[in-house]
Amino acid sequence: MPKIVEQWLQKVLDTMGHRTTVTRSQIMSATKLNSASVSHTLQFLLERGIILKVGELQSKAGRHQDVMTLNPEAGYFVAVVLESTRMRFALTNFVGDIRYRWEADVQLGQTLQIREIVAGIEMVLRNLSEVQRLRLAAIGISCPGILSQSGGVTALNLGWKNISLTPELEEIFSLPVYLEHPTHSAIRAERWVGLAQGVRDFIDVMVGHVVGVGVFSNGRFVGGRDQMAGEVGHIRIDPDGSDVCRCGKTGCLEAIVSSPNIFRQYRAKTGLEGSYSGGLRVTDVFERARRHETAAVEVPDRVTRYLRLALSYLVNFLNPELIILGGDLITAEDLLLPSLREQIAANTLPDFVKNLNIAVSRMGLDIGLKGAASLAFRTALNHPEVLKNMCRLVVELHSHSPAVEGSSSVAS
Amino acid sequence: MPKIVEQWLQKVLDTMGHRTTVTRSQIMSATKLNSASVSHTLQFLLERGIILKVGELQSKAGRHQDVMTLNPEAGYFVAVVLESTRMRFALTNFVGDIRYRWEADVQLGQTLQIREIVAGIEMVLRNLSEVQRLRLAAIGISCPGILSQSGGVTALNLGWKNISLTPELEEIFSLPVYLEHPTHSAIRAERWVGLAQGVRDFIDVMVGHVVGVGVFSNGRFVGGRDQMAGEVGHIRIDPDGSDVCRCGKTGCLEAIVSSPNIFRQYRAKTGLEGSYSGGLRVTDVFERARRHETAAVEVPDRVTRYLRLALSYLVNFLNPELIILGGDLITAEDLLLPSLREQIAANTLPDFVKNLNIAVSRMGLDIGLKGAASLAFRTALNHPEVLKNMCRLVVELHSHSPAVEGSSSVAS
Repeated sequence: MPKIVEQWLQKVLDTMGHRTTVTRSQIMSATKLNSASVSHTLQFLLERGIILKVGELQSKAGRHQDVMTLNPEAGYFVAVVLESTRMRFALTNFVGDIRYRWEADVQLGQTLQIREIVAGIEMVLRNLSEVQRLRLAAIGISCPGILSQSGGVTALNLGWKNISLTPELEEIFSLPVYLEHPTHSAIRAERWVGLAQGVRDFIDVMVGHVVGVGVFSNGRFVGGRDQMAGEVGHIRIDPDGSDVCRCGKTGCLEAIVSSPNIFRQYRAKTGLEGSYSGGLRVTDVFERARRHETAAVEVPDRVTRYLRLALSYLVNFLNPELIILGGDLITAEDLLLPSLREQIAANTLPDFVKNLNIAVSRMGLDIGLKGAASLAFRTALNHPEVLKNMCRLVVELHSHSPAVEGSSSVAS
Repeated sequence: MPKIVEQWLQKVLDTMGHRTTVTRSQIMSATKLNSASVSHTLQFLLERGIILKVGELQSKAGRHQDVMTLNPEAGYFVAVVLESTRMRFALTNFVGDIRYRWEADVQLGQTLQIREIVAGIEMVLRNLSEVQRLRLAAIGISCPGILSQSGGVTALNLGWKNISLTPELEEIFSLPVYLEHPTHSAIRAERWVGLAQGVRDFIDVMVGHVVGVGVFSNGRFVGGRDQMAGEVGHIRIDPDGSDVCRCGKTGCLEAIVSSPNIFRQYRAKTGLEGSYSGGLRVTDVFERARRHETAAVEVPDRVTRYLRLALSYLVNFLNPELIILGGDLITAEDLLLPSLREQIAANTLPDFVKNLNIAVSRMGLDIGLKGAASLAFRTALNHPEVLKNMCRLVVELHSHSPAVEGSSSVAS
């Protein structure tokens, strides 16, 4: 067996992680590796059961080409999504299928408890056999706030301060733990299995409790100097506006279009009692707008005015071919989307919308988990020691998978 | 002589084009090529006189390392800058020093005449000897408007329509011709010899006859789906504003902050006669503001209000570590820059300005020419046939350079 250069392994696995099935020549053209390197690497991976032959193609010259795919059970990942009011956990296989799921509530504004995250991870690991447990490769976490280089988390608006997330979990589970912002996770998920497969320039706009934009340009994340690119919540979209933002300024995008502020504007118009986390939710405001209740109609109108202005700026600065809308916006697709394209056009040059698609994310609640699993897979490939560990074990073919896909348990 | 793989040549020359002097081990670490590949490539380039040994370093182990640099006379480029009212031409050597320069006026609003561009290029080529002429590698052009894949140019606001620039010049000069937008040229120039050397995330804001932003993120250009990213002139920065833009909308950024519109706003306040291209220029408005003439002071105040708003959006979306301001803004550095940083801070989160530098470009009128020369050099490296041609000739060492740097001729 010739020595397998880590770079070859990384490139071949990265290519195979993007496609369902591939041939040797497709891998050569995607990785730019030469014929011998690809052959050696494929042989190495086939012998270990990390990839599988799943068919043949006949070429014009009459020769057969093997069709290969990742062995879905070659490895497992834990995906974790931390949100302001909810923690989500999943065990995924090597290709990101969710095998087991667990969720738990988080008290808004209280500090994050590492022991609750540990308990959640343990819940989804229960079904793995000893042998499968050895093939657990990494933990990927989608987490809001400011993420430090050393794996610490601070989200002041959520009451999370200097939580040493990565170091503690790495010690407890003896696994590499990778951490990423939800806007990046969303980008990964949409690129992997969502609307942005093969799209090189797009933005992912999430409007919910907060507002975030993931920027993907020229086939890469745009992170900026401090990985804060796309944190658009506090642009002063209405500099003369009176909406007071939690950051202390007025007229911020988040102070107008986020879910708590949609609710606030509706309450101000109606004199209604109650708070955002109380009985009435933002989806109820949209529902009342659909029934043409005047106060409820005016709120989405104002929200779209500023949302389209922000989107038109993003479109001008970045010239994407696709905008994906996610978060609570999804529940108001019928109210917000129909005129959005022409409204953006009215705020920019026609050339910018000529090739622009606007779509609502179809990934639902899975988006964070899929993104976190993708983070674990992709980052593991870039860490030689993790990559080696993933390829160390010979995977028993046709091994029993831990649970049927789709089965899940949700905490009430 | 072993076969030199084009990729090796490309990587080594690309690295050397970024640094003044380099050692073999610095090239290895920058290119990620192995020792043998780098040695072969350097030997090949040294034998042909394309790179030169210019010194030695002693390492800790007592061994000597050669220090090498590009031979400045190994090749020549023509740099061309097309502007709304001016054409600039330069002959540059292999490292971008301007050897000879020519300029000519363009009538604003009249179509671009290829024969005038040809005449300008011929002006700067006159001083090359026959031998040097053979080492002319490529022509780089910085040009506004919409640049088609086939090298055509359309800039409707300048009266330029479907001008087949690249194909015609390539036929006349039998040289590869590369075309790029001025915002990209500016980025290249600042990266090469300006304020952005080694900076991975920055934006270059040019305000003059039009407004353009070059976006560089994660060590790469951000172009977008149709290479229109950063064309920020027509974002509606004041949606309720009455400034009529040449695009037909109102409240566009360009309708407020571009030079003709700075002049327009001043004229409206003073009832002054005359037009932008007449006797009074935008620099005169700034000069009157310095003398505290009320109407003149109000105009820069309004300009900075909307400029800082646009910059705060850019900073939020892209999280750059540096903003470079260029164009006519340079002449008003004292009026615009002092409070710009705190004004941006007031429109965004403090974290975004913590690591943000704002500076005025120091490159003056050379910026476009340096950018076009860099375009020619970098693009030539990516075209195997041009690269081969550049390396085909053995360069006579200590060859006479065509003209002393700095000598130039400017048409009146």
